[in-house]
Amino acid sequence: MNRVYLDHNATTPLRPEARAAMAAAMDVAGNPSSVHAEGRAAKALIERARAQVAAAFGADGADVIFTSGATEAAALACAGRGLHGAEVEHDAVRAWVETDLPVEPSGRVGVADPAHSVLQMANSETGLLQELPQGLAVTDATQALGKLPVAFNWCGADMALISAHKLGGPKGIGALVIRRGTDLAAQIRGGGQEMGRRSGTENVIGIAGFGAAAEAASRDLAAGIWTRVEKFRNILESCLEAGSKKIIFVGKDSPRLPNTSCFVVPGWKGETQVMQMDLSGFAISAGSACSSGKVRASRVLRAMGFDETAAASAVRVSLGPQTTEEDVLRFAETWLEKERKHHARAA
Amino acid sequence: MNRVYLDHNATTPLRPEARAAMAAAMDVAGNPSSVHAEGRAAKALIERARAQVAAAFGADGADVIFTSGATEAAALACAGRGLHGAEVEHDAVRAWVETDLPVEPSGRVGVADPAHSVLQMANSETGLLQELPQGLAVTDATQALGKLPVAFNWCGADMALISAHKLGGPKGIGALVIRRGTDLAAQIRGGGQEMGRRSGTENVIGIAGFGAAAEAASRDLAAGIWTRVEKFRNILESCLEAGSKKIIFVGKDSPRLPNTSCFVVPGWKGETQVMQMDLSGFAISAGSACSSGKVRASRVLRAMGFDETAAASAVRVSLGPQTTEEDVLRFAETWLEKERKHHARAA
Repeated sequence: MNRVYLDHNATTPLRPEARAAMAAAMDVAGNPSSVHAEGRAAKALIERARAQVAAAFGADGADVIFTSGATEAAALACAGRGLHGAEVEHDAVRAWVETDLPVEPSGRVGVADPAHSVLQMANSETGLLQELPQGLAVTDATQALGKLPVAFNWCGADMALISAHKLGGPKGIGALVIRRGTDLAAQIRGGGQEMGRRSGTENVIGIAGFGAAAEAASRDLAAGIWTRVEKFRNILESCLEAGSKKIIFVGKDSPRLPNTSCFVVPGWKGETQVMQMDLSGFAISAGSACSSGKVRASRVLRAMGFDETAAASAVRVSLGPQTTEEDVLRFAETWLEKERKHHARAA
Repeated sequence: MNRVYLDHNATTPLRPEARAAMAAAMDVAGNPSSVHAEGRAAKALIERARAQVAAAFGADGADVIFTSGATEAAALACAGRGLHGAEVEHDAVRAWVETDLPVEPSGRVGVADPAHSVLQMANSETGLLQELPQGLAVTDATQALGKLPVAFNWCGADMALISAHKLGGPKGIGALVIRRGTDLAAQIRGGGQEMGRRSGTENVIGIAGFGAAAEAASRDLAAGIWTRVEKFRNILESCLEAGSKKIIFVGKDSPRLPNTSCFVVPGWKGETQVMQMDLSGFAISAGSACSSGKVRASRVLRAMGFDETAAASAVRVSLGPQTTEEDVLRFAETWLEKERKHHARAA
């Protein structure tokens, strides 16, 4: 039996378009900073990808600064600026901000001072969307870009963090998108690449993959692919709801990503669910995965008012464009069987 | 006529071994931080590459922290530490240090306080080698690794910067190698990857390419490939010396990289030489390439005592494992012809 990958919010399989662009970039030997023909060819690949990313993100006229991912982009955008954020933000953002913004039980974050705040467009664990206030300093668009029709130029923020590997591009490449004229001090200094804002020889192959993936994701989005994904997500939730007496869905009635389902069975640890489903051939995640492989109670759910037990019993299922109805039906069947066994053991 | 690429110190063509490893890594969909099978497979690729890099660099028992390149590694190793360095260091190092160490006309750097100093193993422009003092804080091994038999564990430094794309790996991936137990504060924070020292979802494809390239470079080095390269470099210099009355070689009689030749024809701008040779099918570089495409007088040569005119008239020719004797003979013939025309115009 084939494995079923339902962890697209953690990372996505590489799109064929990205793979092809990366293979082509492997043949370009030059350093983009070199003035000779080989260097100019590498530079051209980067500028093409920059235009692709800007177009996919509605960011024409803004600057796209390529970084090693959204985590580096978060440091570049937020470090040393005294910004405010909420506990539901990603660790890469939380590392640099005062996490003092209030979170309602619905997940909605209250922003008092947009010009000194950071706010995610969509939460990675719950999929819940935020309404961005005008004049926001920074938004984390990592989970939204590619899944929702979001445009940087209309989102009201001065800067946005994005990442290739959430939309079918390679891991290790992302960007900080910044309204032209916004002040920004470089964090990584040296050769002065990326308009002096981010030094270091560019990840040409990764950048080419990012550009191609962004373009393909934008095309899929326009073609309505996420409407189908949302239908399958809703089928999944209906099956789980029909079969389980203890399941609690998080954010089911609020605006959220079309591919994400977050649910809790209090007392059945998320970590255990992930391992059991993994052994049965399904890749999902428990609230928040941290790099050590340890899984903690979801900080996001705690911030929304869930108690420690509930927050430790959350899992996230996140679908992708390739997910089929059969995938979600098989998942639901397997999960419900394991849930029954869990309750039988616990009884 | 095929182009001849003689700018291997700027960046190298991707080795077939790296390409194959990267293609294989493209099939691994998981996030290395995820606990499920897909995540573990991605993590395994990273750990394999880490072992390959450590073995190639004689760094068993040291920590290899993958970064987006040597520039980020320099920031991680040097920022905020009050280190001393010389003007001959790379811009990525100079950005973080007091550049007050003396440089002799031979290029040799005087280090008074190794524990608070950074020193390159080899200079990118001249190829000149430094003798590292014991107890050095940081060494930049970017140009040395792959071309010389250098071992981190025996080099006397606590940390070393290395980069994949100087030895046949992809651009956008490098590492900070650090003696276990050395203090280091993370610069990019968030998910806690790389033992908490460098957050961000790992560049899995790039890391796999780095590992394979490092292994292949190490094998080539052991097989004596650079002895052949050095012979061709010496043939090149003999031809140029025989045909030119004005040429001055930099560092010709000092220990230097086997593939690098740096020379000056005072008054014939390096930038002009690069453009003329580019039009004739040869990729070389002028002293130092900066990201804007502008070429300045070589800071490295200025530090060694060359005057402004001479420092603006330097070019670097850097050979690679694929360079042939015919390549260097053709280069010499073309360059000497252009030099004659230059002198005729200038007369």
